[in-house]
Amino acid sequence: MSKFSNPVVLKLIEKHRRLWAIRHASALMSWDTETYMPRAGIDGRSYASAELEALYQQAITAPDVVALLEAAEGFEGLNDYERGVIRVMRREVDRYTKIPAQLLYRLERTSGLAFEAWREAREKSEFSKFSPYLKELVEINRKIAEALGYREEPYDALLDLHEEGLTTGEASRVLEGIRGELKRIYERVSADGYYIRPSALEEASYDTGAMGQVNRAVLEMLGYPADRARLDVSPHPFTIELGIDDVRITTRYEGRDFKRSLFSVIHEFGHATYALQIDRELFMTPIGDGVSLGIHEGQSRFWENVIGRSREFATLVKPLLDEKLKLTRGTDVEELYRYFALVKPQPVRTEADELTYNLHIILRFELEKGMIRGEVKVDELPELWNRMSEELLGIRPRNDAEGVLQDIHWAHGSIGYFPTYTLGNIVAAMMWSAIGKERVKELVAGSRFGEIKEFMKERVHIYGATYQPRELLMKSFGSSYSPDALISYLSAKYLS
Amino acid sequence: MSKFSNPVVLKLIEKHRRLWAIRHASALMSWDTETYMPRAGIDGRSYASAELEALYQQAITAPDVVALLEAAEGFEGLNDYERGVIRVMRREVDRYTKIPAQLLYRLERTSGLAFEAWREAREKSEFSKFSPYLKELVEINRKIAEALGYREEPYDALLDLHEEGLTTGEASRVLEGIRGELKRIYERVSADGYYIRPSALEEASYDTGAMGQVNRAVLEMLGYPADRARLDVSPHPFTIELGIDDVRITTRYEGRDFKRSLFSVIHEFGHATYALQIDRELFMTPIGDGVSLGIHEGQSRFWENVIGRSREFATLVKPLLDEKLKLTRGTDVEELYRYFALVKPQPVRTEADELTYNLHIILRFELEKGMIRGEVKVDELPELWNRMSEELLGIRPRNDAEGVLQDIHWAHGSIGYFPTYTLGNIVAAMMWSAIGKERVKELVAGSRFGEIKEFMKERVHIYGATYQPRELLMKSFGSSYSPDALISYLSAKYLS
Repeated sequence: MSKFSNPVVLKLIEKHRRLWAIRHASALMSWDTETYMPRAGIDGRSYASAELEALYQQAITAPDVVALLEAAEGFEGLNDYERGVIRVMRREVDRYTKIPAQLLYRLERTSGLAFEAWREAREKSEFSKFSPYLKELVEINRKIAEALGYREEPYDALLDLHEEGLTTGEASRVLEGIRGELKRIYERVSADGYYIRPSALEEASYDTGAMGQVNRAVLEMLGYPADRARLDVSPHPFTIELGIDDVRITTRYEGRDFKRSLFSVIHEFGHATYALQIDRELFMTPIGDGVSLGIHEGQSRFWENVIGRSREFATLVKPLLDEKLKLTRGTDVEELYRYFALVKPQPVRTEADELTYNLHIILRFELEKGMIRGEVKVDELPELWNRMSEELLGIRPRNDAEGVLQDIHWAHGSIGYFPTYTLGNIVAAMMWSAIGKERVKELVAGSRFGEIKEFMKERVHIYGATYQPRELLMKSFGSSYSPDALISYLSAKYLS
Repeated sequence: MSKFSNPVVLKLIEKHRRLWAIRHASALMSWDTETYMPRAGIDGRSYASAELEALYQQAITAPDVVALLEAAEGFEGLNDYERGVIRVMRREVDRYTKIPAQLLYRLERTSGLAFEAWREAREKSEFSKFSPYLKELVEINRKIAEALGYREEPYDALLDLHEEGLTTGEASRVLEGIRGELKRIYERVSADGYYIRPSALEEASYDTGAMGQVNRAVLEMLGYPADRARLDVSPHPFTIELGIDDVRITTRYEGRDFKRSLFSVIHEFGHATYALQIDRELFMTPIGDGVSLGIHEGQSRFWENVIGRSREFATLVKPLLDEKLKLTRGTDVEELYRYFALVKPQPVRTEADELTYNLHIILRFELEKGMIRGEVKVDELPELWNRMSEELLGIRPRNDAEGVLQDIHWAHGSIGYFPTYTLGNIVAAMMWSAIGKERVKELVAGSRFGEIKEFMKERVHIYGATYQPRELLMKSFGSSYSPDALISYLSAKYLS
């Protein structure tokens, strides 16, 4: 039986196909910009992207689409899928109706300039080169929040843009709830010393071609479908979903510390698997994508951290590494595992391990919440950043390049994005807990990744965006974002 | 001084940027489909392409665009560029207004099915599997011709779709004009034997990686700009223009007869160079592309045939081939040249040499003209094809797969395309004549390709689609498509 039967919803889905096509084209353009586009093509590409975005805004707010949506909202007795379609379309229509076109344009324009300024500022480690743009972006984000509306405070509206339904209150509860525990685990790990002792593998150089072979072999082992997916190279690893049968991930090859490339591949594989396992019937409909950044990140973190950085995975992958990469030949499995699971207190988030990562997020959450509330001035950011870094990680960045200027997100105009990373770590831990600690070990040790994928498919992937994130978590795991799961997982891993 | 000053034309150009963006996205999708798309992605891609085409039709026929165009058409005293903008927009608006949407849909749908049927028919060499679709496509093309209107006969309208202003009368005059001469040259070459004696290089296998290096080195020698252009691999070589600074060509590696890969690269380089040398100020405007298939093909044929298949080029490229490909080490330059310039009477157009190629075109032109006139029935095609092949080339195809089923064009629904190939050969010869026979030799021998590109730029490329093809030829070479130039060129090459 078809998931959709209400005739108005069916019409809405049909209309949506054009919106989907514009998104498909835009996504392909983004992928191409990062992978194969000749460098000088960027100018034309920027124009094309901006025009397609305008076209999308025009199409999503077209009177016939809005009228259909309103008509659909009048029905009772719709099923979950149909209600999901209406919910997602309403969010999208509201977003593009409530935010004035000039404000969107100003955001796009300013973040374009801000990105350039940020790059230069980071290169020279001079915050003042970036701060005027950040001030403007904070201002624009506040205006966007006002335009969208919120329950308690403007930052809510920005969080909701990245994670449907997330509020400042909930994010605070979650992050504050784990802050003390994380610090406690981190201090014990530091005191114990096992996981923080450097590994020789961090410094070892590798051959890019050989590493590419390792990555491909690992993807094959995990069951990445060659006729429906790709792996390419780009400056920053990412996943892009062009359709149920066209999902692409990228990685990069830095030439040393091979786990960085390996785990970026496994991480993106997690995102890709979500996209590849959504119910086929939802393809091209408004609910045909992953539901939120937090849930998405949960999938990628599960594969990267729970699976990839485990002792069992180290055992499984060692022969392959020995054969192709050669660097690990003199190392035993335990040392390889230690290298994978290393805890490394240092100032840069993207280089953080799975334990301290969340402390980096807490820092950013506090600062951007303060900026949007007007309690933190942009000019005070560098010093606040450094102070919090010392307090949370015990490390003071040597300069702004590895402090306040390290992330790209604000330069892109994104405020409210960071907390979804920790939500992802929580979801990964919730899945770990739902499968069961010993069972996970058994499945990884037996290379039974198909069973793990099946579990994820049934509990999460297949629904696409049918349910709100919290609703999905309740339905599938019996609770909303549950920080306890993360603490249990990290304790089990690092304190046992 | 800017090329555009009329305020209405300027507005039209601004509106056009959105149309350009849709075309840019569609072009990228086509490129991706042929190069990197995971195979299973084709289903989603087809939907996305169809939606973008519909979006384009909607946008080009939008009341505000048409109103602006009509207003612009009311002005006098516009300059050539402004008139060009209006001319090209009028053609495009008419095309999408006059052809009913259902007919375009029927064409797209039928050619989709026809393509599949053609593939199977060709595989089994069974024309009857394809003929019902071809009948339907002839019917649809007749309806399109009626919708578009024509001066003398419906085939005119179809020719004009591929080559602005081309009529059945002109195409007949051109093709009939060269038919006798071509046959005469061809018979003398056959009798002489030098150019038709097989070469051992045709049978030699090559290493794909080494051939890729040769192709890249040749592109570098010709001055293909790495930051504005790419070379990739696809089942059928093509050029795609994504912008003034983003042009991409493809080739294929069959593993033997290396000139096929080499000359496809040089051919596509010719197309790419046209796109790369259009005046920057025309970028994203309606006149920012090459003006017609005939003129475009002239550029590619010049590079492929006049330059690539010359004695001077063989001399120039031999050290590179000796070094990278090794196959030519025991061969002298004259033998390499003979291999490049070989005349090979055989039934398949895409494998034809530069001399017999035009005889293949004459055959197709006569048959499709007859079909559209209703004088040739689809069911009679195989026998007519074979008879004409014997008459023109002295060769009867062994079966329909290498006869009437060999080309993809009709299966794509394209009727009226073929003659542009011979127009291209004519334009190439006209440029050869304009530069001067001895001067071309001198420039190639001296690897002075920049001077050749400069000539092409000034005479042809820089104008984009500002002038109609014939107007451009008159302006730059003093005559319209002049078959005499082709005969002179081929005589000079093959009879001296």
